[in-house]
Amino acid sequence: MHPSPPSLTPFFSPKGIAVIGASNNPVKLGYGLARNLVQSNYQGMVHFVNPRGGSLLGRPLYASIAEVPDPLDLAIIIVPAAAVPEGLRQCGLRGLRAAIIASGGFRETGAEGAALEAECLEIAAEYGMRLLGPNCIGLLDTHLPLDATFLPPPGPLPGDVAFISHSGAICAAVIDWARGQGFGLSRLVSLGNQSDVNETDVLAAVAADPFTRVLTLYLEGVSDGRRFIAEAGRVARHKPVIALKVGRYASGQRAVASHTGALAGQESAFNAAFRRAGVIRADTSEEMFDWARALAWCPPPPGRDMAVLTNAGGPGVTAADALEANGLRLARLGEATLARLRALLPPAASLSNPIDMLASATPEQYASGLEILLTDAKVSGVLVILPPPPMHTAGAVAKALIPVIHNATKPVIIALMGERLIQEAVEHFRAARVPEYRFPERAASALAILAQRAEFLQREQAIPDRCCQVDTEAAQALLAGFASNPTGPASGILPPDVALCLMEAYQIPVPPSGLVHSPQEAVALAQRLGYPVALKIVSADISHKSDIGGVLLNLNGDESVTRGFTAVMQNARDAHPQAEIAGVHVQPMLLEGQDVIIGAVQDAQFGPLVMFGSGGIEVEGLKDVAFALAPLTREEASYLIDETWAGRKLRGYRNIPAGDREAVVAALLRLAQLAADFPQLAEIEINPLRVLPENGGVLALDVRARLDGD
Amino acid sequence: MHPSPPSLTPFFSPKGIAVIGASNNPVKLGYGLARNLVQSNYQGMVHFVNPRGGSLLGRPLYASIAEVPDPLDLAIIIVPAAAVPEGLRQCGLRGLRAAIIASGGFRETGAEGAALEAECLEIAAEYGMRLLGPNCIGLLDTHLPLDATFLPPPGPLPGDVAFISHSGAICAAVIDWARGQGFGLSRLVSLGNQSDVNETDVLAAVAADPFTRVLTLYLEGVSDGRRFIAEAGRVARHKPVIALKVGRYASGQRAVASHTGALAGQESAFNAAFRRAGVIRADTSEEMFDWARALAWCPPPPGRDMAVLTNAGGPGVTAADALEANGLRLARLGEATLARLRALLPPAASLSNPIDMLASATPEQYASGLEILLTDAKVSGVLVILPPPPMHTAGAVAKALIPVIHNATKPVIIALMGERLIQEAVEHFRAARVPEYRFPERAASALAILAQRAEFLQREQAIPDRCCQVDTEAAQALLAGFASNPTGPASGILPPDVALCLMEAYQIPVPPSGLVHSPQEAVALAQRLGYPVALKIVSADISHKSDIGGVLLNLNGDESVTRGFTAVMQNARDAHPQAEIAGVHVQPMLLEGQDVIIGAVQDAQFGPLVMFGSGGIEVEGLKDVAFALAPLTREEASYLIDETWAGRKLRGYRNIPAGDREAVVAALLRLAQLAADFPQLAEIEINPLRVLPENGGVLALDVRARLDGD
Repeated sequence: MHPSPPSLTPFFSPKGIAVIGASNNPVKLGYGLARNLVQSNYQGMVHFVNPRGGSLLGRPLYASIAEVPDPLDLAIIIVPAAAVPEGLRQCGLRGLRAAIIASGGFRETGAEGAALEAECLEIAAEYGMRLLGPNCIGLLDTHLPLDATFLPPPGPLPGDVAFISHSGAICAAVIDWARGQGFGLSRLVSLGNQSDVNETDVLAAVAADPFTRVLTLYLEGVSDGRRFIAEAGRVARHKPVIALKVGRYASGQRAVASHTGALAGQESAFNAAFRRAGVIRADTSEEMFDWARALAWCPPPPGRDMAVLTNAGGPGVTAADALEANGLRLARLGEATLARLRALLPPAASLSNPIDMLASATPEQYASGLEILLTDAKVSGVLVILPPPPMHTAGAVAKALIPVIHNATKPVIIALMGERLIQEAVEHFRAARVPEYRFPERAASALAILAQRAEFLQREQAIPDRCCQVDTEAAQALLAGFASNPTGPASGILPPDVALCLMEAYQIPVPPSGLVHSPQEAVALAQRLGYPVALKIVSADISHKSDIGGVLLNLNGDESVTRGFTAVMQNARDAHPQAEIAGVHVQPMLLEGQDVIIGAVQDAQFGPLVMFGSGGIEVEGLKDVAFALAPLTREEASYLIDETWAGRKLRGYRNIPAGDREAVVAALLRLAQLAADFPQLAEIEINPLRVLPENGGVLALDVRARLDGD
Repeated sequence: MHPSPPSLTPFFSPKGIAVIGASNNPVKLGYGLARNLVQSNYQGMVHFVNPRGGSLLGRPLYASIAEVPDPLDLAIIIVPAAAVPEGLRQCGLRGLRAAIIASGGFRETGAEGAALEAECLEIAAEYGMRLLGPNCIGLLDTHLPLDATFLPPPGPLPGDVAFISHSGAICAAVIDWARGQGFGLSRLVSLGNQSDVNETDVLAAVAADPFTRVLTLYLEGVSDGRRFIAEAGRVARHKPVIALKVGRYASGQRAVASHTGALAGQESAFNAAFRRAGVIRADTSEEMFDWARALAWCPPPPGRDMAVLTNAGGPGVTAADALEANGLRLARLGEATLARLRALLPPAASLSNPIDMLASATPEQYASGLEILLTDAKVSGVLVILPPPPMHTAGAVAKALIPVIHNATKPVIIALMGERLIQEAVEHFRAARVPEYRFPERAASALAILAQRAEFLQREQAIPDRCCQVDTEAAQALLAGFASNPTGPASGILPPDVALCLMEAYQIPVPPSGLVHSPQEAVALAQRLGYPVALKIVSADISHKSDIGGVLLNLNGDESVTRGFTAVMQNARDAHPQAEIAGVHVQPMLLEGQDVIIGAVQDAQFGPLVMFGSGGIEVEGLKDVAFALAPLTREEASYLIDETWAGRKLRGYRNIPAGDREAVVAALLRLAQLAADFPQLAEIEINPLRVLPENGGVLALDVRARLDGD
């Protein structure tokens, strides 16, 4: 839309701001905005515009923005919707390049409002302006500082966590809740209707803030899937990005022709996209901010082996459960660690992780115990459990722990159990930026996210390689030929032979076979393919071929093939004298192996999506499948395999021999490349893909493909 | 242990209490106990015992319990462990029947402590005393009132939720946390080492309290599985019971010979037990108390169709997601409801559930909107979302809502978003006993638990019927014969023919077959079984029967059978001239159907456990299985089937015809009965059980059974 979109800088570091619609009436949002701007100690110029004139908060009310003196680079418009386009035009004429439209009454109210919104967008384009909103509560930056929202004070405390939201109401609630929870925000952006600036646009601008250590997103969708992945992926390499994506169950039903299409809902696509970009997906708001604090404040753990330090057995067991439930392990402590702990603690203490120091544990024992655990190379991080110690205050324990935690290069998370008896400890930990949670379960979940983040950072950046040795031109020609064929079925389903040729073009192996017309040809081909072989009559007029003796299996020599050719031809002619017979198919007997499904669909939001899993006809019932974006990296292909039982089984299971996993990876990469190269392939699915025992390769036994109807 | 255990009454409504070890030293637990008893306003007599004499809190310190005047029926002992047995003996001599041992230093510290604990138990048995503890923090009752703990004040607020805990530290944390969260407790019992009184013993006593509306349990295990189920099941019919069971990952590995055994971990058994008893299982402490408040305060919803009332779109979407994620549905509102809402709200409001009244919503609109939704017969309950409304206070909305909620016969749950701006609303709702949560996700989870509870109460009480027509005596004889057979394999695996006979005794159908020794016998049997049939050579000396032509399938007439008998005998003799041949098996050809697995194992804690699911060899990989306790009710058998894909598929799927579900239910009931009747059957598994198309019945194709090694 913008050939070269003007920068977002004026939104995040404006030199001068004008509020169009600033009001003297304290119940009006135009008053709230003016008040917040002034009270937030924003150091730039703040001007108010209202045609009624007069003054507000000791400043003049200009009749129009034309009169506002320089410097001025950001307007905030809070007038009735109908008056917004004219206000915006005045901003354009004044030379502004950025405006926040806080007013509501646009697309969210129906067709009339949508027309107004379109008008605003046209005006913005005309003057090269960027728009935030309309129908948003604005933005704020606690460090600049700047509060360009109309929310009642107090605003958030300064902090490390940025929040970008599609919902204004959630912004208001989060600001209030975060303050009560004692954690701060760095920047907050309410996106409103996103007539121009959307969630993807602001990502880099928000991440550029040196005070922001973690980005949190409340998303109702994304505007452009692939661009979001690219932007979020760039940001997530440097700062953690956590998203709460809502609207899971709102996705409509689409017409699909494959298992892959039926299973690839919007949520699978979002999960695949978030994984590709390194965005952490939270399921609830609390989880998002629980994780954000840990990610903002803790170093990454070197592994998944955690220690639990407690003064009571019960919460220790709960913590051990929660660690395991979150995919972490209880570290096995080294001998030196055990010896030091033994010297530190009473004989009745339990030294096998969780370490139960008993109710008598002193602040000094907590601190020394933690230090000992952190020194152990086998410990990746520590969960400290702190119910109010009967003999000491939790505050004293906190004070003793904090220096140890600040010196540590591994994460320490606190489960601070209780409420009133732990208030002093809560305040110490919050001031020291040590994450504390009321229950071991939430603490364990935060520790797991730290491990996940550390592993993401260790992973090579996901840059899919183009598969070499694929014949894109041949595939292009096949699809073009089919698309231009006016007799093709309306459903868009490709004929099986065309689908097989696509496989050949992308070097996904299919069972070798050939059509022969004489016993001599049959024998020659059988010799080339290798014995044993199967013969099958080929005729469009004969449907149940095996019932009439039209199929022979397991022929193991020239003589059998010669006799067999004659027999299937004769059987076919006897049973269907009128049938037109195209010849006889010769195929080597298929080797036994494991059958899986691989498929790809085009997602409306994120483009091609690849699926892997348990095949057969029960795919949709078993739901043993995983998704990733195409094209794939090798790491992603491995992930798809490891996520599913079908994939884990390829390592071998009971009397099922291991399959050729590498060949599956190759087939996944090639199918993904095919789907990425040809967006007109709405769905393509290999079911089953037979995986032969190790080094045996794979064979696409059945391929279905559908071209887009357009 | 106790032929007729003395009552627990003195623990919960003592007439007089003596503290043995009461102390003037404020840092001693013996002081805390004395202080709490006095400060809790307990109306009975409180006496203190300490050989040093003097006085404490204005009361005399008696030298021994013998001197304490009547009435006296409960002692609380808080002296060093070594002195406890003597103190307990004094209590026995004084005629007491109940004692709380708060002191630690017993089994939890090692062998010496365990010996002390055993000594205490012997003394208690000698005098017919019940013991709570040792190593516990005591108990309290906020309504009596009575605080017999040594925890620092303040204790919990009076409330509706009882808490029974295996962990004392958790008790301390929960009391403190609950007070901060503004919800009260009715009774609290810390069980400590459970030398005598255990979690099951106190269930009924705690539930008998008229102030207790919900019981919450923190469990590290149960002492006697079947007794727990019986007691908890009785209680849960009247009052909701929620359990947080920890130690999920602590269960050790056992030697098993079946898929059922491998999959039936301790957690499957607990889940089956809780389901049987109607105990609601929470995964986290917060969840447990979130649910407890809703269950204590809300009426049961008549169904799962919920309405969401909000003043902002974003939280409405979050709530809709959360409802669906928790298995609830968004109600479709009736026409009358829509008309009334239309009259109430501005045109831009969104009336399709979630109902978004817009940010301008007034307290009156909240109240009327809620009343309108509650009147709709299609609405089972309402989730009200209340971020601080921009134009009004959340407190004013709360005041308007509460009378509507109190008049309702359906549940209303509040998502009160924020912290500081909603404090007044929080206090109104808490005082009015309306459950409120900070985020829609937690509110939706609470609503789902109300629906689950309502459905449990609607379900018939689970009383397994004995399957009629099972031949217990025949099975008994078979097992006895095998057990007494000194040549039986050490593994305990039953020979296949014995396992098949067990099936026959319990009328679980097996494929009909018979052994014949001549072509004439073969034909006669084939005629009786029905054509087509299969013939199979029977010889312990021939392992790969089909390779040597020892198996013939699909024989469809007398002549084929005559020829076939001769052929398989001849083939066997040709291939293995020395083999001893027992005869030829005649079996009707098996009909195609769906294969499932059913199995049973003996769980150490809960006794026989039944499994149903996807069979084959991949059982443990697919994990498509569900468990219930044996014997089964029909409802439980249905539940097992509906929980799994294997079971849902029995309704038919794509080209797989529906199976005979009723026959599966019957087989499950019979196998469960068999496992319940014979605890010596450590494992028994039918894999596969072939389910024929409707009315076709089932066939146990392969049966494995193992007797207990003891």
